[in-house]
Amino acid sequence: MWSAKIFTLYPEFFPGLLDMGMYKRAREKNIWKLDIVNIRDYALDKHGSVDDKPFGGGRGMLMRADVIDHCLINNQNNNPTIYLSPKGKTLNQDMVKNFSLQNGLNILCGHFEGVDQRVIEKNNIEEISIGDYVLSGGETAATVLLDSVLRLLPGVLGAEGSLQEESFNDNLLEYPQYTQPREWEGKKVPDVLLSGNHAEIKHWRLEQSRSITQRLRPDMWQKYNKNKN
Amino acid sequence: MWSAKIFTLYPEFFPGLLDMGMYKRAREKNIWKLDIVNIRDYALDKHGSVDDKPFGGGRGMLMRADVIDHCLINNQNNNPTIYLSPKGKTLNQDMVKNFSLQNGLNILCGHFEGVDQRVIEKNNIEEISIGDYVLSGGETAATVLLDSVLRLLPGVLGAEGSLQEESFNDNLLEYPQYTQPREWEGKKVPDVLLSGNHAEIKHWRLEQSRSITQRLRPDMWQKYNKNKN
Repeated sequence: MWSAKIFTLYPEFFPGLLDMGMYKRAREKNIWKLDIVNIRDYALDKHGSVDDKPFGGGRGMLMRADVIDHCLINNQNNNPTIYLSPKGKTLNQDMVKNFSLQNGLNILCGHFEGVDQRVIEKNNIEEISIGDYVLSGGETAATVLLDSVLRLLPGVLGAEGSLQEESFNDNLLEYPQYTQPREWEGKKVPDVLLSGNHAEIKHWRLEQSRSITQRLRPDMWQKYNKNKN
Repeated sequence: MWSAKIFTLYPEFFPGLLDMGMYKRAREKNIWKLDIVNIRDYALDKHGSVDDKPFGGGRGMLMRADVIDHCLINNQNNNPTIYLSPKGKTLNQDMVKNFSLQNGLNILCGHFEGVDQRVIEKNNIEEISIGDYVLSGGETAATVLLDSVLRLLPGVLGAEGSLQEESFNDNLLEYPQYTQPREWEGKKVPDVLLSGNHAEIKHWRLEQSRSITQRLRPDMWQKYNKNKN
């Protein structure tokens, strides 16, 4: 069973979106489990303090190293622990796949202005960023990260085949898709998709993917061409 | 009042994490509002169908253009509408800032394998991706997007000054931060941060930011140096 453990100051908001249909069914089938740890339960004083002002000045509050460490020590396991932070390594689908192949993941959600860097260093926690934007804390990012990983666990998606052809697998963005009705508001589904000619459909989709990637993501396009040669 | 409207098949999971402390207070102060639209309410048949198989083959289901369009027409306003999709333009902090300066944002959350491309084209919907990984649908991404935008709305963050110095503002990642206790497990807070010398602290932080950015994000480092010259 794949084990997700979230360290947070906002335990009441989980599982939240991770309780959606297929993830809920997968939890009931023991494909994965979710443990939520309330960092505040590991505060070291009577007031339940978890944060304090940053040394050197600056607005906002930082989460204390000693409190987080106390929390981590009391909830140890053999899975990797990551900290979601804008200064982390940028998450991509290869990293997501790798996480799905582990036995689970511990996710530390920072809040306020972040956490005291010493607890990250002491525990060799990997810092990971889900993108180049700033969030109020790690909670929304943790939900996205788990969404990306959970769907890759065997048995979670109904149609496992749909994992085969999807964005990022070959450094190409996905081709446009169409469903019923065949004609809608004067817009027809491209003829080739109705042809039943699988080779032509595959060719058209690849060309669409190539063209979209080249236009929107020159960085991915470069990687695609490099891997191809 | 900044107006968020989310089009989703999973209305029951909102506001979820967007009901955290400061966002909840901001909603009560009418700084922003959240409308959740259940796409299924706009199904066109008796069965409430919202999806169908993709033309040309492939696993999974696509959301129908006619259903989504019916839903959008009945919930129009003057705010931009975006579709969260892995083949969209990659979200960054500049885009987030721009969204925060609008009057609001309509967010279409795809699910299953995505949506029929015709409804995107007909409505000139901008496709935006929060990162290079695949999610089960747009719901978790919508939560992240709104988290990034809402904290920028005036009056949402207690200490507004903390928006000044943060990751991505100058193409530099944030410097490490430290709080109490001064010494913890043999690890001391860097002396300079206790010096009270603001010029030296500023210099140290800038050097840390430069060094971290150069090491972890050569792409940002390149932009930083380009903008500086």
